[in-house]
Amino acid sequence: MAVDRPFREQIVRFGAMLHERGFVAATDGNLSVRLDENRILVTPTCMSKGSMRPSDLVIVDNEGRLVKGRRRVSSEIAMHLLIYRLRPDVRGIVHAHPPTATGFAAAGMALNQPLVCEVVIGLGSIPLAKYGTPGTPELTEALEPLVPHYDALLMSNHGVVAYGADLEQAYMKMETVEHFAKIALVTHQLGIQQPLGAAEVEKLIVVRAKYQNGLPPSAASMPVSFSGSDGNHHRKNAEAPEERKDLTASRESK
Amino acid sequence: MAVDRPFREQIVRFGAMLHERGFVAATDGNLSVRLDENRILVTPTCMSKGSMRPSDLVIVDNEGRLVKGRRRVSSEIAMHLLIYRLRPDVRGIVHAHPPTATGFAAAGMALNQPLVCEVVIGLGSIPLAKYGTPGTPELTEALEPLVPHYDALLMSNHGVVAYGADLEQAYMKMETVEHFAKIALVTHQLGIQQPLGAAEVEKLIVVRAKYQNGLPPSAASMPVSFSGSDGNHHRKNAEAPEERKDLTASRESK
Amino acid sequence: MAVDRPFREQIVRFGAMLHERGFVAATDGNLSVRLDENRILVTPTCMSKGSMRPSDLVIVDNEGRLVKGRRRVSSEIAMHLLIYRLRPDVRGIVHAHPPTATGFAAAGMALNQPLVCEVVIGLGSIPLAKYGTPGTPELTEALEPLVPHYDALLMSNHGVVAYGADLEQAYMKMETVEHFAKIALVTHQLGIQQPLGAAEVEKLIVVRAKYQNGLPPSAASMPVSFSGSDGNHHRKNAEAPEERKDLTASRESK
Amino acid sequence: MAVDRPFREQIVRFGAMLHERGFVAATDGNLSVRLDENRILVTPTCMSKGSMRPSDLVIVDNEGRLVKGRRRVSSEIAMHLLIYRLRPDVRGIVHAHPPTATGFAAAGMALNQPLVCEVVIGLGSIPLAKYGTPGTPELTEALEPLVPHYDALLMSNHGVVAYGADLEQAYMKMETVEHFAKIALVTHQLGIQQPLGAAEVEKLIVVRAKYQNGLPPSAASMPVSFSGSDGNHHRKNAEAPEERKDLTASRESK
Repeated sequence: MAVDRPFREQIVRFGAMLHERGFVAATDGNLSVRLDENRILVTPTCMSKGSMRPSDLVIVDNEGRLVKGRRRVSSEIAMHLLIYRLRPDVRGIVHAHPPTATGFAAAGMALNQPLVCEVVIGLGSIPLAKYGTPGTPELTEALEPLVPHYDALLMSNHGVVAYGADLEQAYMKMETVEHFAKIALVTHQLGIQQPLGAAEVEKLIVVRAKYQNGLPPSAASMPVSFSGSDGNHHRKNAEAPEERKDLTASRESK
Repeated sequence: MAVDRPFREQIVRFGAMLHERGFVAATDGNLSVRLDENRILVTPTCMSKGSMRPSDLVIVDNEGRLVKGRRRVSSEIAMHLLIYRLRPDVRGIVHAHPPTATGFAAAGMALNQPLVCEVVIGLGSIPLAKYGTPGTPELTEALEPLVPHYDALLMSNHGVVAYGADLEQAYMKMETVEHFAKIALVTHQLGIQQPLGAAEVEKLIVVRAKYQNGLPPSAASMPVSFSGSDGNHHRKNAEAPEERKDLTASRESK
Repeated sequence: MAVDRPFREQIVRFGAMLHERGFVAATDGNLSVRLDENRILVTPTCMSKGSMRPSDLVIVDNEGRLVKGRRRVSSEIAMHLLIYRLRPDVRGIVHAHPPTATGFAAAGMALNQPLVCEVVIGLGSIPLAKYGTPGTPELTEALEPLVPHYDALLMSNHGVVAYGADLEQAYMKMETVEHFAKIALVTHQLGIQQPLGAAEVEKLIVVRAKYQNGLPPSAASMPVSFSGSDGNHHRKNAEAPEERKDLTASRESK
Repeated sequence: MAVDRPFREQIVRFGAMLHERGFVAATDGNLSVRLDENRILVTPTCMSKGSMRPSDLVIVDNEGRLVKGRRRVSSEIAMHLLIYRLRPDVRGIVHAHPPTATGFAAAGMALNQPLVCEVVIGLGSIPLAKYGTPGTPELTEALEPLVPHYDALLMSNHGVVAYGADLEQAYMKMETVEHFAKIALVTHQLGIQQPLGAAEVEKLIVVRAKYQNGLPPSAASMPVSFSGSDGNHHRKNAEAPEERKDLTASRESK
């Protein structure tokens, strides 16, 4: 356990922050760290993320089989496995239900308007994945087309998942999603929004490229979507092809 | 007192959390634990739940008579007695006024839309009990038809009560109610809601059954109501028969 | 100072709570305790109430003249002197700007709808005093007609003042005002309110009378106003006669 | 480092408060202190302001060149240099993204209505600077016309910057901006506002002059704007001449 110890403590610390900030209630949410090519440290099911001890965490392999630990593995382990499989650069994942962003996800709205420049630089847009029943392949199928192109996703009628080069970066992206959702909600409450124009967003993409030297690659790979409230909600089966188009364009331009 | 001690400390701890999170103001709220068949440990009246000591708590019998303690029993003890009588599985109760959920209760609206999958799994819908004057039989009469079928209730023009197999579970359900109320409020502020359809809710009931092995029975007994903003507000005398119907159906299908 | 010490510590503690809860920003707010017939302990001006030490407080006499202390007296001392003069039962006062209640006060709206039963029991309605420039006799003139009849007041375009038999009670009433303002705001956001009817309010007044044995007299003297958004805003000179009428009636019925 | 030490600790402390209060997410925000005529202590880039140590800070000269420190200088250093150049009285600057005020800035709305008397006394109105891409001369050009006349600015689609005679005053002004934004938002949610009239604002300017003896000069130099939601948003190139007019008038009347 000597090697895992710092990661266990990190999961306990960020779990407590999720609860402290109201990003999860009851036993909601889960966090994981990729320890090495074949082992993932993850939170157990049916336990408040605000009061875990390092020994409560479990280790699974890449198929989600329990390798070490006394507790039951999170029922959302398949989502973590999917992200680690599709994104070799990711080593930390946070899933939570921050209330403002989850409200957007329950309203069927993506957080894809360029309202705040630093969110465009840091995350690009935050798309809305279509709904899938938790603990079933529906859910991972809904996320799969989006995971390669974004570092944080709204999940319809569910919550938010964010991931990064380490757990701290994943947690920070979760904070940014909720922080941005609060700002966006205020503009809705005021009844007026002045999003940045296309030319301003282009300049921010240049700024982002400059940051890229100091940041992990994933953070810079996120495209900005100009589409309105996206159409990949659970009433549709299409994989949001119009979004993928600008994603692809954006990635190719790197 | 040696035996009660952990329960006293638990009530003090969750009382402090209620105050810290703004779920109660001033001397609002009360918490109790069923110690054994005939003794209930409960918070005193006229005291902030954020600054109690273990010795401030009192013990009453099943008729609410003071058995032990120097302080006056909470004036809402009858509500606790009702719940313990109707629900043998319950050993912990939390009553508070979390502001968002209480806002729904003052607007005459139940929290019964399937907007977030994990709330459907964990609590089902949260009905609105009709109004009854605190400290009178009106209040317990308003709650009585709902207590067997739900683990958390909105109380019209009053607040929320949640209960579970222990105090921690009751507290966690209180957190979930307020957390869900915040999410639902955001959808109202955005002016749009995309609730889950009946087929999706059916799948969640299957997921819930799977969870049931690891969870106490009460958590799985909660039905999901598809009725709109419920009709059991204080201007009506009926016991919300249309809700009870689907409750019964749901319970029979177990 | 031996005698004052506990009161100094109490003011420091509740000042920190005001700041911690966001009820004041910067150097906003002030707190006082009546030490004896002729001496009032009060917070200094131009200092964050979140980082005071006991020795920062000052003592003034009933005319507001500095009796002890190195700092300058709060510029709102006249408001405290007024309340102590008109309410012999009061020994603690808290003035702050909790953002939701202050939003009502900036919208010109009283918190006078009977939406939550325990607020009716505890505070009755919370009226809106007309506007007066701080630090001038205008302000005390605006408060004077209301102070004898209520334990917490919204001050137009300014904030809230609450007072009680000791500082803890005054602070708790401040919490209740903001807590109730949050609940009332949610009903506005939902676009629907189901206030209690007159018959229900009458029953609560009976409940309040029962509580009165255990509570200080001031808490029970608060009338309930059924008038709509009150008319004593700064565009009027009248002292809200229609409110005073029901106040008087209510007080006479004690 | 002996001399810098208290300032380093102060930046770390207020940085933690910014994060704790949700005024920044992830690595947002930056803080600085003018140490002497030619040295500025400032936070590094790419680091959470909630978990800095004193040794993480860097020192730059008046041209923003690194003088001391191992980390990279904040990319928004040019904004700090501009403010220190234009305002010799300023020794502390805080830049953050408090969500309510930033929501106004993303809606294209200034916080310039006289809704709360103590905000008029303390800050006057809070204008909205037009948008400029971060890290480019556009941004400093957008701020330049406003910096001499105000102590806190909304930055379109970006956030807030506040500054004062020391870092504590700058931080307190940041708190006031967000606190006032929350109050103003409540009035929007209630759908009604009762701003102070011109005569009332005039009286507050007299009160402010009285405070001026005890406060640093900058706090008193802030004019009050009566113009509506200001017009200096990024679709315009003009430097808000109608606002500058009343600024000038106000400053000349000192």
